[in-house]
Amino acid sequence: MGIRVGIIGTGLIGEDHGRKLSSVISGSTVSAVTDVRRERAEQVAAIVGGARVLASGHELIASDLVDAVLVTSIGETHAEYVLACITAGKPVLCEKPLAPTVAECERIIAAEVAHGRRLVIVGFMRRYDPGYQQVEATLRSGAIGEALMLHNVHRNATVGEGYTSTMTMTDSMIHEVDVSRWLLDEEIMAVQVIPPKRTPKAFPHLQDPQFAVFTTESGILSTVEFFANAQYGYDVRCELVGSLGTAALVNPVVASTTAGGRASAAVPADWRGRFSGAYTAELQAWIAGLARGECVGPSAWEGYAATKVVEAGVEAVVSGARETIDYMDKPALYR
Amino acid sequence: MGIRVGIIGTGLIGEDHGRKLSSVISGSTVSAVTDVRRERAEQVAAIVGGARVLASGHELIASDLVDAVLVTSIGETHAEYVLACITAGKPVLCEKPLAPTVAECERIIAAEVAHGRRLVIVGFMRRYDPGYQQVEATLRSGAIGEALMLHNVHRNATVGEGYTSTMTMTDSMIHEVDVSRWLLDEEIMAVQVIPPKRTPKAFPHLQDPQFAVFTTESGILSTVEFFANAQYGYDVRCELVGSLGTAALVNPVVASTTAGGRASAAVPADWRGRFSGAYTAELQAWIAGLARGECVGPSAWEGYAATKVVEAGVEAVVSGARETIDYMDKPALYR
Amino acid sequence: MGIRVGIIGTGLIGEDHGRKLSSVISGSTVSAVTDVRRERAEQVAAIVGGARVLASGHELIASDLVDAVLVTSIGETHAEYVLACITAGKPVLCEKPLAPTVAECERIIAAEVAHGRRLVIVGFMRRYDPGYQQVEATLRSGAIGEALMLHNVHRNATVGEGYTSTMTMTDSMIHEVDVSRWLLDEEIMAVQVIPPKRTPKAFPHLQDPQFAVFTTESGILSTVEFFANAQYGYDVRCELVGSLGTAALVNPVVASTTAGGRASAAVPADWRGRFSGAYTAELQAWIAGLARGECVGPSAWEGYAATKVVEAGVEAVVSGARETIDYMDKPALYR
Amino acid sequence: MGIRVGIIGTGLIGEDHGRKLSSVISGSTVSAVTDVRRERAEQVAAIVGGARVLASGHELIASDLVDAVLVTSIGETHAEYVLACITAGKPVLCEKPLAPTVAECERIIAAEVAHGRRLVIVGFMRRYDPGYQQVEATLRSGAIGEALMLHNVHRNATVGEGYTSTMTMTDSMIHEVDVSRWLLDEEIMAVQVIPPKRTPKAFPHLQDPQFAVFTTESGILSTVEFFANAQYGYDVRCELVGSLGTAALVNPVVASTTAGGRASAAVPADWRGRFSGAYTAELQAWIAGLARGECVGPSAWEGYAATKVVEAGVEAVVSGARETIDYMDKPALYR
Repeated sequence: MGIRVGIIGTGLIGEDHGRKLSSVISGSTVSAVTDVRRERAEQVAAIVGGARVLASGHELIASDLVDAVLVTSIGETHAEYVLACITAGKPVLCEKPLAPTVAECERIIAAEVAHGRRLVIVGFMRRYDPGYQQVEATLRSGAIGEALMLHNVHRNATVGEGYTSTMTMTDSMIHEVDVSRWLLDEEIMAVQVIPPKRTPKAFPHLQDPQFAVFTTESGILSTVEFFANAQYGYDVRCELVGSLGTAALVNPVVASTTAGGRASAAVPADWRGRFSGAYTAELQAWIAGLARGECVGPSAWEGYAATKVVEAGVEAVVSGARETIDYMDKPALYR
Repeated sequence: MGIRVGIIGTGLIGEDHGRKLSSVISGSTVSAVTDVRRERAEQVAAIVGGARVLASGHELIASDLVDAVLVTSIGETHAEYVLACITAGKPVLCEKPLAPTVAECERIIAAEVAHGRRLVIVGFMRRYDPGYQQVEATLRSGAIGEALMLHNVHRNATVGEGYTSTMTMTDSMIHEVDVSRWLLDEEIMAVQVIPPKRTPKAFPHLQDPQFAVFTTESGILSTVEFFANAQYGYDVRCELVGSLGTAALVNPVVASTTAGGRASAAVPADWRGRFSGAYTAELQAWIAGLARGECVGPSAWEGYAATKVVEAGVEAVVSGARETIDYMDKPALYR
Repeated sequence: MGIRVGIIGTGLIGEDHGRKLSSVISGSTVSAVTDVRRERAEQVAAIVGGARVLASGHELIASDLVDAVLVTSIGETHAEYVLACITAGKPVLCEKPLAPTVAECERIIAAEVAHGRRLVIVGFMRRYDPGYQQVEATLRSGAIGEALMLHNVHRNATVGEGYTSTMTMTDSMIHEVDVSRWLLDEEIMAVQVIPPKRTPKAFPHLQDPQFAVFTTESGILSTVEFFANAQYGYDVRCELVGSLGTAALVNPVVASTTAGGRASAAVPADWRGRFSGAYTAELQAWIAGLARGECVGPSAWEGYAATKVVEAGVEAVVSGARETIDYMDKPALYR
Repeated sequence: MGIRVGIIGTGLIGEDHGRKLSSVISGSTVSAVTDVRRERAEQVAAIVGGARVLASGHELIASDLVDAVLVTSIGETHAEYVLACITAGKPVLCEKPLAPTVAECERIIAAEVAHGRRLVIVGFMRRYDPGYQQVEATLRSGAIGEALMLHNVHRNATVGEGYTSTMTMTDSMIHEVDVSRWLLDEEIMAVQVIPPKRTPKAFPHLQDPQFAVFTTESGILSTVEFFANAQYGYDVRCELVGSLGTAALVNPVVASTTAGGRASAAVPADWRGRFSGAYTAELQAWIAGLARGECVGPSAWEGYAATKVVEAGVEAVVSGARETIDYMDKPALYR
């Protein structure tokens, strides 16, 4: 039976993770699910092979059926559930963001530090993508010298009307924030956002695309183009520029076609086509760790730091100015 | 606990599959192992999380601990174990070849037909590679017209002294034989082998590289360059040439480096770097099928047909002439 | 004999152009050369097949031997020679920049307007590169929608000690300024420069790399990473992001190698390996135009506009602030 | 004025070369043209800037207006004109083939040997392609060890009804024959042709595609897929497989597009899009050589050897058997 996971929030991502935990990952089952829309929870319960549908996240966290919790509800509820998991002493994988506000992240960190042992991991799955891992390994190998700049591109095909200009930071560029911190192994100290010409394909309230420049402790620039309505597909790129050379993601292509005067390859339609393997690896590492009694994955500190940068980023979207960032001292638990 | 798999033969491939079944695949455990070298079996038993070490393949097949059998022993023993599984009514995944001789394959087919239900699948994992699958989908879509030719390249870094000229067929090109049959959906009716200049890097007894031309029922050519000691890495390529265009594998690359005047990407060292995902998908499909009571994977007929072609291929290596192939009628079980 | 070209300034670029005009371009010879170092002029005179060595640029411009003038002397002397060519009524190709100061560019424009006919072209050779031309054609075709952003990368292997932080604008990014104006068909109205972490491979006085963001009339962003000491080679990239898709340069690679576990291709060592064909096309178009009595190539206005942007760019390097740009009215001669 | 070239045969290729000699190549003009269709000759005379239209090839060869001759008439007339050029002591560039029959090639060789000095070059332009040159340089560098196999692909979009099955050898694979001989620096001793399934897009009389295997003196295999009606474009590929690695052409791509879910690049429509630069380089090298009094380019021996192989290849197309080849002794003039 392995690790019995309970899922709070059975939207698109909750369902996708549920499928993996019940039919792709070794050592886990999905034992319970809950959602504000009960029907939806029942649907997903069936998909994952017959999980119990519980009335609320808190009931799920408390349930004897549940060894570990997956929080895939909307961001505003993350802190509440993660704190409850810490109180219950249950391991929890919280999808990004750890919490939308820095204050909440700080409460989680305080609670986990008080608990004295790591229980929380945050769903920054790009760290598990083989491409990013190879870029990181190339940097560590010394082959490209010292990191000086990181260029990121993050494009979605389309977003819905509910997607706002500040969500470019909180929902999207948060991935590049985490990737930059992880690859460069430094905190981000400042951010500036420069708006490009708007696409006619976005809803009128949305500044799309968006261009941000993050600066790390030692002065490394991490540039990010985020384009929510790029139309042509889902496209994530990253080039790390070092003092001796560069390392870059190559878009995963498995086959090409030549026909009608063009040689071509498919671009993924969305994140599932691009990062499904990374999500699988993240979940497998978490489950295998739990089986060994370990907490494997990006810590609450990573979640806190990302939210700190994103909060400054939201201010920078509004102000157009360069916003700087101060961090609390890093507790010993996360060193 | 899921499907409890017993492994007969814990060499490199048996160990690799064992690791997957115990720690990557959803729904399986490895419950028993056996090997002619008992110490080796004990090693692998520990690796897969504590399987029982049994004295023989036959004991393993008979054991109550075992729901399904994985045959990864040497080819000469395959038929014996597969036949025993059919007798025991247990599902079996047999690594390629199904058996080294056509006579043995025919006995397996006769036994399975007599049993009346499919139990046997053969480990032609390339059918599970996303690249080959996309080539196949492109052909089926009509985008490249009608298949006319298939060009295959199959290169290993090195092989040991025990590797012989006829093993280029039985151990290596058997993969291209299966891929050709599967992609083109036709039987191979003839084969010619033309020896290129020998590499100085091979042992003197080995004709290496080797070049073969297979012809299908409708006259499609499938060319195969097999190079056992290509030195630079493991490299498998396939281009399907149609009447309107072509579809080809793209070597899976996840990141690139520019340094010292070159832009470059890694070539896998061996089949594990290239086809690990295909093996995982093959095993997951088999296990998930068993959980539903189905037998999912290439059938004993595919194993028989491949061995038929390979047998002619071995003759062609020796004769230098074009050798033709006749098949038995396909039993209804495999239609 | 065709068009007899006189060359003022026989440094690296003057010699390279001289070779092309004497032995690659149809319809031209090099009839006269001059340089502040007479020995150098004599060397190049021999290389181009026996040109007359004259004492000064002014003597060369006045000479009956010279139908058209190529100015490849140092930037500070450009305006003087170009103005003398206009006075003499002789066509002139001036290497970039047209002149280092806006005031000089304005004088050239005033003189050419007074002359009433175009004589001056500026050596913005990237407009003749097939890659940039294809990006431009793709944009014009509508296939990628409306231009929103342009991402440029410009890397040299190394620069000498004389290369200064403001030369990143005047000598190097001036190419991206011209490419942006030409591709986007809009003037640049503002520029901000953000310094990345410095490479340890640069001389201490040099800010290297450098990151600039240019904004056009309609708000399109053109970002430029310039890296003078990238070590690994010469690398120029450009991606145009439109509302429906993107168009990008592909680094010209003619062959690849697989060996030692890597698949790789050469990166050019310098601009000659990358843009030799563009220089040839530029010179051939100029010479063919002169033979027909036309002035073919980027006009003095393009030179003026580039210097305007570069002047603001130099201020931006120093100030760290966003600097804006105002242009004179465009004279009818250049519309 | 430079070298005054006379062109015999102003079809597509004659016009294309004429344009280059009159407006792209340094040091040449086109002074005279002739064609069996006088109107066509007059058209091309105008295109190349006013050449004299002469009544016949022989008149052109004899004319005082002509320093060097370009033979781009149909293959059957090549030997006659080349022999006349030798008699007249005038340099001649003959498009491939040198002559369609071995007997004619032998007469040309005998005549040139009797003349005592090389006058004849054959238009094997691929030797001037930067890609092939880099493959050759990589082999010579030792980086890929010793040559063992060469894999060639040669695809046209379509051919006319007049194109026959033996022309796959005489008109098309002759290029791969020359490339193989040149890259491998060995004569071809045998050829076998294996017909793939026919495309429904070819005229009924044509075996299309065609697959040939050439064997060199030391046993290196050179495989050639030739596909006359590949529909999707013009595509020439070449991979040299060595004992330590491989070197391969990369199709020249200058820009890519992402749109509508695909990343793509253009495939050239025909040989002009692919080999225009090689033709220019070939012509420039020839003209520059003539200006120095040298005969630069593939010799009559290369033309003879190619026709020898092609003659055997035509037999192999008909017989289906492996045909072997014997050569005359190589005269000292060509060593």
